[in-house]
This record gives sequence, C-alpha cells and structure tokens, in this order.
Amino acid sequence: MDNTKAYAANSATSPLVAATIAPREPTPHDVQIDILFCGVCHSDLHTVRDEWSSVMPTVYPCVPGHEIVGRVIRVGSAVTSHQPGDMVGVGCLVDSDHVCPSCQAHVEQFCPEAAFTYNSPDKHQTAPVTYGGYSESIVVDERFVLRVPSNLDLAGVAPLLCAGITTWSPIRRWGDIKGKKVGVVGLGGLGHMGVKFAKAFGARVVVFTTSPGKKDDALRLGADEVIISTDSGQMKQHAGSFDFILNTIAAEHDINAYIQMLGLDGNITLVGAPDKPLPVSAFALLVGRKSLSGSLIGGIKETQEMLDFCGEHNITADVEIIPIQQINEAYERLLKSDVKYRFSIDMASLKR
Amino acid sequence: MDNTKAYAANSATSPLVAATIAPREPTPHDVQIDILFCGVCHSDLHTVRDEWSSVMPTVYPCVPGHEIVGRVIRVGSAVTSHQPGDMVGVGCLVDSDHVCPSCQAHVEQFCPEAAFTYNSPDKHQTAPVTYGGYSESIVVDERFVLRVPSNLDLAGVAPLLCAGITTWSPIRRWGDIKGKKVGVVGLGGLGHMGVKFAKAFGARVVVFTTSPGKKDDALRLGADEVIISTDSGQMKQHAGSFDFILNTIAAEHDINAYIQMLGLDGNITLVGAPDKPLPVSAFALLVGRKSLSGSLIGGIKETQEMLDFCGEHNITADVEIIPIQQINEAYERLLKSDVKYRFSIDMASLKR
Repeated sequence: MDNTKAYAANSATSPLVAATIAPREPTPHDVQIDILFCGVCHSDLHTVRDEWSSVMPTVYPCVPGHEIVGRVIRVGSAVTSHQPGDMVGVGCLVDSDHVCPSCQAHVEQFCPEAAFTYNSPDKHQTAPVTYGGYSESIVVDERFVLRVPSNLDLAGVAPLLCAGITTWSPIRRWGDIKGKKVGVVGLGGLGHMGVKFAKAFGARVVVFTTSPGKKDDALRLGADEVIISTDSGQMKQHAGSFDFILNTIAAEHDINAYIQMLGLDGNITLVGAPDKPLPVSAFALLVGRKSLSGSLIGGIKETQEMLDFCGEHNITADVEIIPIQQINEAYERLLKSDVKYRFSIDMASLKR
Repeated sequence: MDNTKAYAANSATSPLVAATIAPREPTPHDVQIDILFCGVCHSDLHTVRDEWSSVMPTVYPCVPGHEIVGRVIRVGSAVTSHQPGDMVGVGCLVDSDHVCPSCQAHVEQFCPEAAFTYNSPDKHQTAPVTYGGYSESIVVDERFVLRVPSNLDLAGVAPLLCAGITTWSPIRRWGDIKGKKVGVVGLGGLGHMGVKFAKAFGARVVVFTTSPGKKDDALRLGADEVIISTDSGQMKQHAGSFDFILNTIAAEHDINAYIQMLGLDGNITLVGAPDKPLPVSAFALLVGRKSLSGSLIGGIKETQEMLDFCGEHNITADVEIIPIQQINEAYERLLKSDVKYRFSIDMASLKR
C-alpha cells in the first residue's frame, strides 16, 4: 500500500514531526478509513514521552491517536458492516481474541490479546507496533469500527471514542442515575463528558473543581451545582449526600475527602490512574457500606451504544480544532489544562 | 431495679473485675433478658482499652459484650414480639431513631441516632453509657431483640450476633455466590463464619491465610482450598480468578495483592478497619473494573434472616467456652489469635 502521511515522535524527548508510514493492505475483514479528525488524549502525551515505560514501553517511531473519526474508503471482501462512504470511528481498541471470557462479556479492553490502536504489538506484522490516528489513513478490522451518527459535528465526535466511552461506561454500569445526586470530580476532557452524560440521564449533577473560574462553564455544560473542593465548608455541607461520583483526576489527591461525600451504598469510580497508591481509609468505606471502583475505557458494543445515544441527544465533546502542525504546542497546553475541553486535530491539515 | 452482677473495666489499663450495675426498669416496649452466653469480640478489647479514643472515647466503668444470648424473663406491657421464656439474642445495636433513611432502609447501624450495646450514650439516662453483655441481665427495646432458633447450641449462637452478621451481610449483599469463587482472607472469629456462610450458599470457598497450620482446620470448616498468602507462587496461580473476596483482616496488609486476585468486575469487601490508610493502586482497580467496599455489621432485619438461616442449616460459631473469671486471660489470648474461633462466656459463672 502507498505510503501514508502521519505525525510521529522518534524518541521520548523529541517533538512530533511529519513522517510516512505504510498501513497494511486491507485483509478481507478490514476497513480502510480516510481520517478526518483525531482527538488528543492525555494518553497520547504519556505514550509519546514514554511515561508509562514500566507498564507499556513506547516503541519509536510512535504515531499516537485513538479518537479517530473518518470516512470509509475501502472494505475487504468479507466486510458486511461497513461500506465505502460510511462515516465511522475508531477508539482505543483495534483487535482482541474474540473467544476469552472478557470478549464474551463484551469488554474487549480486558482481553489478554487486546491490541490497542497505537503502541501495541502489530499482529499483522506490517510494523513493529500499531500506529494511531495522527495519520491520513488507518486500516482496522471491521469489528472495531464504529458507526457514527450522521447528525453530529465530526470534530466533536472524535473525543467520544475515548473520553466519551471512558465516562459513559462507569455511569451506565452504576445503574439508573435518574434523579440521583451524581458528582463529577475534575472538569477536563473526561469530566466535561461525564457532566453531559450524567445530565442526559437525568441526574442532579454536581461538579467538584479546584478552579472557581470553571464554575460558569460547568453550569453551561449542564451541572446543577459546583463545589470548590478546596473549600472545606462547601465540602462539609455536601458530606454523605452523593449516590455516585465519577472521579476523573489522574493526579495525586485526597480520595477520602470524596469517599466522605458518598451516602449509603454510594460508589466512587476512578477513571484516571494516579502514579502513586491512593491512601484509602477503611473506616470511611465501612461506615455507609461505600465502595471505590475502577473503570477502563469500554467495550465495542457499549461504545456503539454511546455513539447512538449521542446521535439521539445531539451530544459531542467541546473541542478546539487545531491543525496537526500545532500538536506539540497543544501538548504543552494540555499539561496546563489549557483547553476547553479537548483538542481535535483537523487531519486535512496533514495534506498541506 | 435490683443491682445486677457484671464485669467491668474501670480504666484503660485495669483488668475487668466484678461489678454491679443497675439496669433500667423495663419500659412498656422493653424486654428484660437473663443472659446465658456472651461472645468475646475484639471490639470489646479495643473499647476496654480505649483504643478507639479518637472516634468513640470509652466511658468508665465499661461493661462490654455485644454477642448476647439469653432467655426473656420479663416484657413491658406493649411488647408483642417476645414473651417470657423465649430464647433471644442481642447484637451490637440497642436503639435507633426508626425514621431516618438508614432506618427506613433497614440499616439501623448507620442511623445518626444509633445506640450501640455498650459505651453509647444511654438514652434512658439510667447510666452514663449503655452497658453490654458481660452481665447477668440486660433490658433492651423489643425492636432490637432477635429470635434465636431453638435447635442451635447457645454458646455457639452468641458470636452470630456480631461475627455472624458482619460476614453474612456483605456476602448476601454481593448477590448469589452459588458456584462462584469466593475468597475469605483471615481465619479468625470473622473469617471462620465467612467460610461457613459462603459454603452454605454454594460457593467454591478459598481461604487466604499466613498460617500453614490453619489449613486442615479451614478445610474442616468448609473451605475447598487454602492459599498461603505469603507464598507468591500460590498467589500468582490464583491471580484474576475470584468473583468476591471477604477481607476480615484488621491489621496492616497489602490490599493490592488481594485486589489482583479478583477477576472481571470482582469485589473485595473489608469488614475490618486497619488504623492506617490502605495504599490502593488505582491501576489495579481500573484493569478488570474491580471494586473495594466496606461493610459494617448489619441491620436488625438481616440479622434475624441470618439467625433463621443458621437454624435451618444448623450453623453456629466454633467457640471455646470460658467462665467470666477468665476474661482477662482470654483477652491476652485473643491478641495472639489463640482461640478457635471465638470465646463464648458462660454467664452462669457470674453467679458464683
């Protein structure tokens, strides 16, 4: 297949630069996608800079990007679910074994053979590792290609493929949150999607943030109330009152302060993973039978359900569209949380 | 009412000694119970020695004991659920407000007005605090008096009122464990009840213990398998395979080692509260959507359900019966886990 334009990092300390890659020829089960937008996830930055070296060392060159939206331009002979011209998405997963208990349970993200969209061993052996969405084009097994509702703004759809499903999955899994008091800790790429989903499901949504400046925006996004988490008076006032809290903070923080916000049988679910262990008070969990959970992206089936729901309710991420040439600057701004609330790369810029 | 013989501690550093107390005259809603057996819970020791001073300072004299079994000898004029001669039990709770959301949800242990069996403010103001079961007799509101099945050994019933319900509640709450792989961490007063209940519900029960010497006993109690938790090979072999783990350890320990034993959507519930915060790896929770919960004793309704189940399945605690005069020695042995698996005080000894 022809060489394809992409953006890649060549080491943990070098910026992303223009590169060419050679995607595989589509197999009978593959779909080739012309990428239109790709969201910028903090995982991209972690991987590019090899910050997860202990778990998943980065292989260079590294082409990140797992919030992919594009148009199908070619399908393999056996493909039945997509056809050229379809608007589709690809998230964090591009393969799994389809037979293990996790795959049977539609949580392919926990399959021992799961292949991630970038920096995973390439089973087709066309490259050392998989290459992601900072690219003109990608070839993906049809089972990992999602249908994108036609009414949605594509730049804002891209982040749904990671930030969207990461927040959708734990909220849906908790149960029916209609009329429940739901907290969202942190108002960034993940948090702002959590607010939109929780609101759409009919919850009373309360945002916890350290930034008073985010209050108006939280309310605009659908929050009913905002708690400045550094204000002990505000925290005390809401103690013991939450049914569910979605915690999107990946930095070190006092988890017990949020456990205390939960009421009877309340749950707080982590979707970010701070480097260091979180010191959890057992006593805080015992009194009120509270629980602390983790959740990691979501399976393909629920990702499609999320996209369909977003189509019906006209939900997309709030994005700042950038050309690929600004990606290194975007990473620096990401580190300062200086984006409302996700960068979405207009991949047409790659053709310049 | 006549003075009643009891055993009390007069300070955090003095031994329990014979004492007399004056229980209240039964109100129209009270039941007076002649105590036959009282189990010895680690909480008794913590309270006697004022080890929970930061949360619930001990008021002296202190008469501990909240695993009470006895015979009704008198009932107030309005009592409908018990009559003289009935065999009954009293656990950790003797009062609540009956109107708050926790009471409505049958979890009186979380009621803000809950009164514990000992060392709680005495609402009837006959003493500075409530006095527990190391006593000839106790007067309790009928709503906190449980029916004891007639077929059970009374000495072994006593520990059901705390150790029993503490382990029953989280297991039942998890759901149907029939055919599931259930772990019990620690084989003491709580753990041995966890094994019996999990087995009775049809689970495949695996005991985690640091003591190879407990293996045979664990199997005798109903465990299908025993893992020596200090053996990394054994731990590795079972990693990711448990549906539910009941963690009865109150000492410091590596909680992440047990979180890693859980499979997809697995839960580990703490029923003991180590003093220091537990360092929890967020990553360990994220991968496999695992959860860490707490559970604290149980409500009156579920305590009765447990006792009825124990009657039907002939389940009691394994106890060593002691006279009250040996209580101080028993505390020293309790600190060394030198009891299989609960001391039960024969209160007839108090009449000597």
